Amino acid sequence: MSDAAHTAADVAVALRSILPADRVLSAESDRDAYAHDDAEWAEYHRPLAVVLARTTAEVAAVVRYAGEAGLAVVPRGAGSGLSGGANALQNAIVLSLERMTRVVEVNVAERYVVAEAGVINDDLRQAVAAHGLWYPPDPASYRISTIGGNAATNAGGICCVKYGVTRDYVLGMTVVLADGEVVRLGRRTAKGATGYDLTALMVGSEGTLGIITEVTLALRQLGGREERAVVGSFASLEAAGVAVAAISAAGVVPSALELIDEMCVRAVDEWQHLGLPVGAAALLLCTVDEAGLTGAEAAASIADLMREAGALAVDEAGEPADIDRLFLARRLAYPALERLGPVLTEDICVPRAAVPEMLGRIRDTAAAHDVVIATIAHAGDGNLHPLIIAPEGDAAAKERAKRAFDRIVDDCRALGGTVTGEHGVGLLKLPGARAELGERVLAMHRDIKAALDPRGTLNPGKAF
Amino acid sequence: MSDAAHTAADVAVALRSILPADRVLSAESDRDAYAHDDAEWAEYHRPLAVVLARTTAEVAAVVRYAGEAGLAVVPRGAGSGLSGGANALQNAIVLSLERMTRVVEVNVAERYVVAEAGVINDDLRQAVAAHGLWYPPDPASYRISTIGGNAATNAGGICCVKYGVTRDYVLGMTVVLADGEVVRLGRRTAKGATGYDLTALMVGSEGTLGIITEVTLALRQLGGREERAVVGSFASLEAAGVAVAAISAAGVVPSALELIDEMCVRAVDEWQHLGLPVGAAALLLCTVDEAGLTGAEAAASIADLMREAGALAVDEAGEPADIDRLFLARRLAYPALERLGPVLTEDICVPRAAVPEMLGRIRDTAAAHDVVIATIAHAGDGNLHPLIIAPEGDAAAKERAKRAFDRIVDDCRALGGTVTGEHGVGLLKLPGARAELGERVLAMHRDIKAALDPRGTLNPGKAF
Repeated sequence: MSDAAHTAADVAVALRSILPADRVLSAESDRDAYAHDDAEWAEYHRPLAVVLARTTAEVAAVVRYAGEAGLAVVPRGAGSGLSGGANALQNAIVLSLERMTRVVEVNVAERYVVAEAGVINDDLRQAVAAHGLWYPPDPASYRISTIGGNAATNAGGICCVKYGVTRDYVLGMTVVLADGEVVRLGRRTAKGATGYDLTALMVGSEGTLGIITEVTLALRQLGGREERAVVGSFASLEAAGVAVAAISAAGVVPSALELIDEMCVRAVDEWQHLGLPVGAAALLLCTVDEAGLTGAEAAASIADLMREAGALAVDEAGEPADIDRLFLARRLAYPALERLGPVLTEDICVPRAAVPEMLGRIRDTAAAHDVVIATIAHAGDGNLHPLIIAPEGDAAAKERAKRAFDRIVDDCRALGGTVTGEHGVGLLKLPGARAELGERVLAMHRDIKAALDPRGTLNPGKAF
Repeated sequence: MSDAAHTAADVAVALRSILPADRVLSAESDRDAYAHDDAEWAEYHRPLAVVLARTTAEVAAVVRYAGEAGLAVVPRGAGSGLSGGANALQNAIVLSLERMTRVVEVNVAERYVVAEAGVINDDLRQAVAAHGLWYPPDPASYRISTIGGNAATNAGGICCVKYGVTRDYVLGMTVVLADGEVVRLGRRTAKGATGYDLTALMVGSEGTLGIITEVTLALRQLGGREERAVVGSFASLEAAGVAVAAISAAGVVPSALELIDEMCVRAVDEWQHLGLPVGAAALLLCTVDEAGLTGAEAAASIADLMREAGALAVDEAGEPADIDRLFLARRLAYPALERLGPVLTEDICVPRAAVPEMLGRIRDTAAAHDVVIATIAHAGDGNLHPLIIAPEGDAAAKERAKRAFDRIVDDCRALGGTVTGEHGVGLLKLPGARAELGERVLAMHRDIKAALDPRGTLNPGKAF
């Protein structure tokens, strides 16, 4: 490792000597544009250079150069992360995979797809849908986020309450290791037990152990599902919690079980005037996707469970346009809240039964810290996204928001939860992750990191 | 690490000084009984001692002692493994977890169970069934194998074609590390993305990175399923393969899709005289478990697909007793073959579409090496178990069987398969695993092993 300080100009020259010139961005405006992901609240610095790689070999060349020069490589997909995992720290080259957009193979008989890391989640879904296949994981960012970023952060989504998260679909991958060597991990067969599950280790490791340049993903059949929606409004968070518990305990597994609180409903309605029940403490939005009579019965039974839990009103829909209308408040919640000011997005996961208690604590935290908090929740998984809003330019409010963020993490842990359900640790959750993992498990992380990346080239300072 | 040679007597004295005396077996007969798992074909040695641990603390004490004394610890559940993962090599203490049989917690609201490593798979299934919950993974050994062994080897089973393997259910665990420290990994919430997925790394690592003493497993609702069976006989392996491909491509996902070949059918029928179609090249045994009309339609469509693929005969059943009768040949295949001589159990996984080709190559291998090979297959996953039979006491036949074993592994790799689908690498699959993983990925294994077990205390020489 070289200890010499590197200037941006030196680094650009060096990178252009090993890559086609158009791969390297060196202008300050470009470097600023790639300095952070969607977690501006976390620390970031202007990177020394930005590389837009086109091939695995180019990624390997950058990693080799960085390792020899003593620089850090910060891999990045779309930059839609919410935890700062792709924020540039000191002495960093940001390595974007957004131009590696090839769907390499769709195998219908074996039901898998091989795709380069930069393929957008939604593009991948459409590419496999053309073959009658389905890739379920659907993070809220699915229209912009890349499949490589999804894998590196183990992205979740709405349908994971029934269909699982990204990890459940990654069969194998091509990875550039810290020494610039390229390996294939995993398999393309349905099962496999050969050696350590290094694929699972890489998934969610946020680019700290290797840079994923290609993934092999298991797929499901596209057909055979029919979506039905059931949406209930509730006078109290407790009543909504009772409904969640009742639905979770019933035989049917919903394909979505979302909750938005009064603050979300109000923000959406004040913006779009949809005639939403603005007095309700929460809306519970559920879908089932069994076909035919089974699905109709499942929807009816969920509607009954909501009514038994004391729903103020329950709406059902079976046609796509009607389902979209019922779910509109859910889809618009985030943009509606962003109108009110910069949003600090929280991501915690508590036991399902603790959702009402956690929602109550969030309400108390908002009051105690004098901040606005609206909550969107994947209620069926206990995965909550309290969105903390601080007015633009109000430094004191921003400080209070950060304290509220930490308090929510502490409350989550006290209720037996985990400090990130699906966004990853990045930078924002480092203190919470350290507290949750404990010293000895952190030491395991450090030992594995040192074993696979002894020079600390790959996204140092992130994930643990 | 001490370089002094240890005698069994010394080791027993030392162990009895740190454990209650009844935990330590030192008689030669006991040590021989624990010298190997169900893979007698692989290398094994008489262990220096056997410990039947009752608590995590006792496991930790043994690991600490072994580390300091320079001995190896070979963890073991029921000893039902088929790859030699629990075979004792030189200077080993066999550490059995079979007496850690407590089901610690069944959580209905969150749908998980916490169980000590020695709980038998079937006991766990029954314990959670009493709460209306279901643990799907069903290795053939489910009546005797332990849940800790299932996790350490990432055991599969019949229903994983629809419901996944052990890894898909392990949320977290308690692990004794190589230095004797005890950590909790993973979570009890439905989702989580905090730190590296060390739980997934431990699953399938065959006790080489830590000793699993307790697991937290996700569960499903028990109710809502209705089993129906469809069994077809086929005149050729190719026709059976066409049926498998057609069923895999159809919308319905079978809850079992098994194949047994002519040799299995014949062995069962000669033993039990069930009137099986002994002239058929293969039986295909399928179940679906959707309730009501959906399930009835699924079964009918699978029967149609079998007929279209040229089935000689197709039987259907909806009542449990009738289903059991149709699946009797599958259940009896292994014991029927064991009657013919010691069985060397192969375990490979090929792409589903390659199943007929692989079956043909196995037939050729049997002929070329003059050995008897009968094949049981989880056909829907491409996971094949060719059972190589050598008459008792025939050393030459045993040698030919081993060569056939290696040839099958090579053919599997040539067809894009993986050298173990669900039994693990243990000792028997070491050469195949090395070839499959390649030098650089093997180096990653060694680096991780060295990072977490620098003295090589934990089951050295296994898994990679």
